[in-house]
Amino acid sequence: MRDLADKCWSLTEADIEALEIGSGILGTGGGGNPYIGKLRAREALRSGLELKILPIEALEDEAKVVPMGGIGAPLVSFERIKEGREGLRCLRALEERMGFTADAVGCEEIGGQNSMEPLVTAAMAGLPVVDGDGMGRAFPEMQMTTYAIYGHRSTPSVMCDPHGNAVIFDHAISEKWHETMARACVIAQGGASVLASAPMSGAFFKRHAIPHSYTQAIGLGRAVIEARRAHEDPIAAICAREKGRRMFSGKITDLKRHFRGGFNVGVAAIEGLEDCRGSQGEITIQNEFLIFRRDGEMQVCVPDLVVVLDLDSGLPITTEVLRYGQRVAVLALPCHELLRTPQALEVIGPGAFGFPDLVYRPMSEAA
Amino acid sequence: MRDLADKCWSLTEADIEALEIGSGILGTGGGGNPYIGKLRAREALRSGLELKILPIEALEDEAKVVPMGGIGAPLVSFERIKEGREGLRCLRALEERMGFTADAVGCEEIGGQNSMEPLVTAAMAGLPVVDGDGMGRAFPEMQMTTYAIYGHRSTPSVMCDPHGNAVIFDHAISEKWHETMARACVIAQGGASVLASAPMSGAFFKRHAIPHSYTQAIGLGRAVIEARRAHEDPIAAICAREKGRRMFSGKITDLKRHFRGGFNVGVAAIEGLEDCRGSQGEITIQNEFLIFRRDGEMQVCVPDLVVVLDLDSGLPITTEVLRYGQRVAVLALPCHELLRTPQALEVIGPGAFGFPDLVYRPMSEAA
Repeated sequence: MRDLADKCWSLTEADIEALEIGSGILGTGGGGNPYIGKLRAREALRSGLELKILPIEALEDEAKVVPMGGIGAPLVSFERIKEGREGLRCLRALEERMGFTADAVGCEEIGGQNSMEPLVTAAMAGLPVVDGDGMGRAFPEMQMTTYAIYGHRSTPSVMCDPHGNAVIFDHAISEKWHETMARACVIAQGGASVLASAPMSGAFFKRHAIPHSYTQAIGLGRAVIEARRAHEDPIAAICAREKGRRMFSGKITDLKRHFRGGFNVGVAAIEGLEDCRGSQGEITIQNEFLIFRRDGEMQVCVPDLVVVLDLDSGLPITTEVLRYGQRVAVLALPCHELLRTPQALEVIGPGAFGFPDLVYRPMSEAA
Repeated sequence: MRDLADKCWSLTEADIEALEIGSGILGTGGGGNPYIGKLRAREALRSGLELKILPIEALEDEAKVVPMGGIGAPLVSFERIKEGREGLRCLRALEERMGFTADAVGCEEIGGQNSMEPLVTAAMAGLPVVDGDGMGRAFPEMQMTTYAIYGHRSTPSVMCDPHGNAVIFDHAISEKWHETMARACVIAQGGASVLASAPMSGAFFKRHAIPHSYTQAIGLGRAVIEARRAHEDPIAAICAREKGRRMFSGKITDLKRHFRGGFNVGVAAIEGLEDCRGSQGEITIQNEFLIFRRDGEMQVCVPDLVVVLDLDSGLPITTEVLRYGQRVAVLALPCHELLRTPQALEVIGPGAFGFPDLVYRPMSEAA
């Protein structure tokens, strides 16, 4: 399957800059700080590695794709830089444990730094990353991928930390148990490790991954960069491209944010500005921005994307960077249809985040 | 190495009864409730399995010995019965991961239920348990074995829970890291799992295990049973046999005990009775009884054994069974010399338990 390389395209530094912004937007505040991810990807590029993307259509049915991503709390990965080879150690240990050779790396989560993690590891291993991912955004837990939702068993998996520790989750009786054990373990490891899951076939990936996420994220980032360059409104550019809606403009007036069970959790209160003056916004956070309420009424919730942007620059703000006094715009972007099935909503709908009374109404229907 | 079987002796139900008491005494309150352990071992025996002990002298240098034990909090294992085949799943997964066949099972910890765990698993696998262990008592953490202290690397190890989850700690950069990750994970698994460590050679076991622990524990239990039968003082029998000292008699008047970080921790206050009237005893607990103070002054501390017995029956009381109003005797038994070296005291002396100012004075010297 080594001729996959012919079908790949390679990322440039400009692509990485665009991916930082695009994955930041799709990250809905989470997925790890994309700036840190960019630095790592750019460093890899400058050291001579090739960051290759394989079009999902070119993926062969029999190819073995290893899904990868960082695991932990964004807050930690923002403050503690990775050792750098965690992902490669995961990949090699997984290949050894299961007796196979990976053909490509899959992205677990296109949002935030987790868009970059697979690129760097794949580059070190001389492999491409397939143009797709398991979330089309960011979510806080591992069972929340379309891979897991549509039947992939992610164990055996390997988790490596910056110290050199390696743990194999050899068998988990469910995807949620995998998450529970790995979460406990990553906290013990310091809160920022990398995890590679059991390989899936190219056929499975093509059927159940959110397709074209890298193309989408890079295109989205480029649109923002171009709008800014042309002194146009980047927020309007994002909405036009993603069929999104601008929900609110305001100033952060209260921010409860803490670190619980390995997650960043909290609530941000936003006092309306401009045409929202007199209104009060509120965002519920668990690593990502989950729910946006206006004057107590729910406006957007998972799995649709709640995006927080700097009001002036149009650049995305992650949950750990959010602070009192920031002037922000809140956007809603519709999630991919693979996240909207009844099967998916059981795992990533509001009920799965502890809001059983909230009923998800797809943005597309409400519009 | 299958002819090891010739050199083994098999445990009877009477041996198991004696082991319950002896391992309870050596457990210094921890190691898991020995009564629960007894029930499992007896059940195994009655189902036709043979619980075999291999004399340590008969162990061949090249034999592969897999150390095993339950991991978790005694409180949990007392309330939630094991599924039963956790240990066997660990052993099989470890053999598969590392590509070897075990010749014998080693005991991590002779104290409490952990004396029984290896017996049941070994019986299921048709293997003997070597007459020795890694603690000569019970300790709360995994790096506190003579195996680890004297250089055995316990990873790769496998940990299995009652649900069917299996985790391989493939590489830990230190024994303490192994403990830290496994502890976090066992809490996520519900607090009572089984762990099998990387095999060691027979030569290593013979040199660094506490020898004859099963013989010792069973003999100790028998001495208590016989003294009780003859209406003699079982406490005196224990002291005579183990070169122990009776330190205190009294009534539990205050008991602070809670569950923190996967451990039972606490303090028990004892008001003196009999010849101790007017004195106040205090025991510090972390899964085991660690330190005994009389009127504020330290009398015994780890690694020497602080044993709490029912004042009338002479039977050992575990930390989770301890309760207000119990009339108890506190005994001190000297630990094995392998636990008293400077190398060992770094890992299992009072400093390792958060008491850097306490200086360990071996009982034998003080006597």
